[in-house]
Amino acid sequence: MRISAIGEFVLIERIKSMLPRPHDALLGIGDDCAVLRPAAGKDLLLTTDLLVDGVDFTPQTITPFHLGRKAMGVNLSDVAAMGGLPRAALITLAISPDAEIEFVDELYRGLREEGARFGVEIIGGDLSASSTLMISVTLVGEVEPGRAVTRSGARPGEQIWITGRLGAAAAGLTALRAGCRLRDDQIEAPFEVSDSLREAIKQTIERHLCPIPRIQEGRTLAQAGVASAMIDLSDGLASDLAHLCRESGVSAKIREDQIPIDQAASAVAQHFGQEPLTMALQGGEDFELLFTSSWDPADIAAMFPDAVTVTAIGKVEEAGSECRLERRDGKIVALTGGYDHFRQ
Amino acid sequence: MRISAIGEFVLIERIKSMLPRPHDALLGIGDDCAVLRPAAGKDLLLTTDLLVDGVDFTPQTITPFHLGRKAMGVNLSDVAAMGGLPRAALITLAISPDAEIEFVDELYRGLREEGARFGVEIIGGDLSASSTLMISVTLVGEVEPGRAVTRSGARPGEQIWITGRLGAAAAGLTALRAGCRLRDDQIEAPFEVSDSLREAIKQTIERHLCPIPRIQEGRTLAQAGVASAMIDLSDGLASDLAHLCRESGVSAKIREDQIPIDQAASAVAQHFGQEPLTMALQGGEDFELLFTSSWDPADIAAMFPDAVTVTAIGKVEEAGSECRLERRDGKIVALTGGYDHFRQ
Repeated sequence: MRISAIGEFVLIERIKSMLPRPHDALLGIGDDCAVLRPAAGKDLLLTTDLLVDGVDFTPQTITPFHLGRKAMGVNLSDVAAMGGLPRAALITLAISPDAEIEFVDELYRGLREEGARFGVEIIGGDLSASSTLMISVTLVGEVEPGRAVTRSGARPGEQIWITGRLGAAAAGLTALRAGCRLRDDQIEAPFEVSDSLREAIKQTIERHLCPIPRIQEGRTLAQAGVASAMIDLSDGLASDLAHLCRESGVSAKIREDQIPIDQAASAVAQHFGQEPLTMALQGGEDFELLFTSSWDPADIAAMFPDAVTVTAIGKVEEAGSECRLERRDGKIVALTGGYDHFRQ
Repeated sequence: MRISAIGEFVLIERIKSMLPRPHDALLGIGDDCAVLRPAAGKDLLLTTDLLVDGVDFTPQTITPFHLGRKAMGVNLSDVAAMGGLPRAALITLAISPDAEIEFVDELYRGLREEGARFGVEIIGGDLSASSTLMISVTLVGEVEPGRAVTRSGARPGEQIWITGRLGAAAAGLTALRAGCRLRDDQIEAPFEVSDSLREAIKQTIERHLCPIPRIQEGRTLAQAGVASAMIDLSDGLASDLAHLCRESGVSAKIREDQIPIDQAASAVAQHFGQEPLTMALQGGEDFELLFTSSWDPADIAAMFPDAVTVTAIGKVEEAGSECRLERRDGKIVALTGGYDHFRQ
């Protein structure tokens, strides 16, 4: 059934009935505003991220359920990058009146499930008609007063760290663009693949479709005061490191031999004749945390469970040059590239 | 110059430099989240409203400056309808890379000026490319704990009130659709108009382009505990009264002879051969406040300065029927109509 058959207000009631009644908010969906009682003595974090059909995603390569998860996940990652705890979300959806209601159901199921994994309740939003599908999430989080980790605190001499391994999201996108699909937890490929490559493709596509917001890692770093500056890797390591350096008034040099590349990403990149390093540096959407710290590397490594890799990849330097990459052969090159919405 | 010529990150810097540095927020535009310190002991209000090109506005009838004012104003009106004080805004913009940078400049000038009139600072947001222009504002406000006025508190026997006069926004839209334009504070019309009609057209177009959020009136009603339920008139009196009644589990009867119709709206409606009452009941976008109260009418009227009209238009009734209108001739009809995004 199409949305136009039930209209705006029945659709709002349908969405409201799909979501658990919020027990954290004083007032959820269905009024002029949502009402939330802030935790005493906490600072409030506010972020919003927009996904546009044909620009930030294509319906051919992502199901509405995964789109919902991703729309929530990219916002969760922004709260993680401040060291905060997410709390509540508003959802804005622009969709064609001719779209199927089941699409909306699946989208909100993804939003709800991804939010619930991190204690986030959906408490409001807005709907409008549009020929271009667009979904925007605004997330409210909290952090101990003065403890929010910004992009601007990096100082020369500190080390640059990242959580996890890079390149998987970009490798997954490459596989999707080559016609691979994830259906019922199985990979369908329009070409012959070995079992090991099939598994690698599956892992990278899952990573592309569902970011893993590093909420717990961000909390650990913020509460201990480890990170002097932090950002999540959404546009790509090269681009996001440049953002952090610009805000901090510093530069940086990272080492190729230190960059942890995801194994599955390497396998997929090689299959498609691409450089794994390029995917790691410029691919974007890995949603790992990049942070700077003056702490002893052993102390930082000891803060995380074995399952979470943290890697020092280079050093913060005085301002005055572009961020640079030291190649394995010792050659130093400028770090460039990354995603720009208006220059594709 | 086009947006694609400068790219996403220069555009963000440009927007940031156009806005005053927020002195209320701990951290504004340029990080993963904005950071706000909530006022101790207040409840938080959160609302978001989306305007889509071709659905909620057309660039032919609204300048980017007025679009910015309106996008902020409709959100301010939602905070007013809870009895709250607005505080900070996040702006989400989806726009073509081929759009002119000056369009963005003017849009944010409108957002900034309308926000500043009510003490609102722009502290964050997001940008994406899109063939369909879309602007979404998320507004954060505050209200004394437990004092937020919801849609659900109306009780049978109470009177139904509205602020101001109705129909002007719909009349202004009619004039715009007929080819009238507001340029440099002057009305241009593609037909002969008298001076008095020209003035009426100007007033109604201004009202359509720039809602007047009833922040002060909403505060007065909430702080004194006058209003048992409240909603702002965005979809039209008929539709918004039905929303309030549904949330409150009641019905309502209003009287045609009590509905205050804007004088300029009447003049414009009559010129275009339309019913002023229809504009008042179903036009929408007047952004006046509709509230219910058991207070003595004289006490309510005495709370407002002479410049602000408040009018009792009918009574809350037991649930069990649709909302109804008592005509001047005593005939009682069902109140229907109003805006639905997915059923135009």
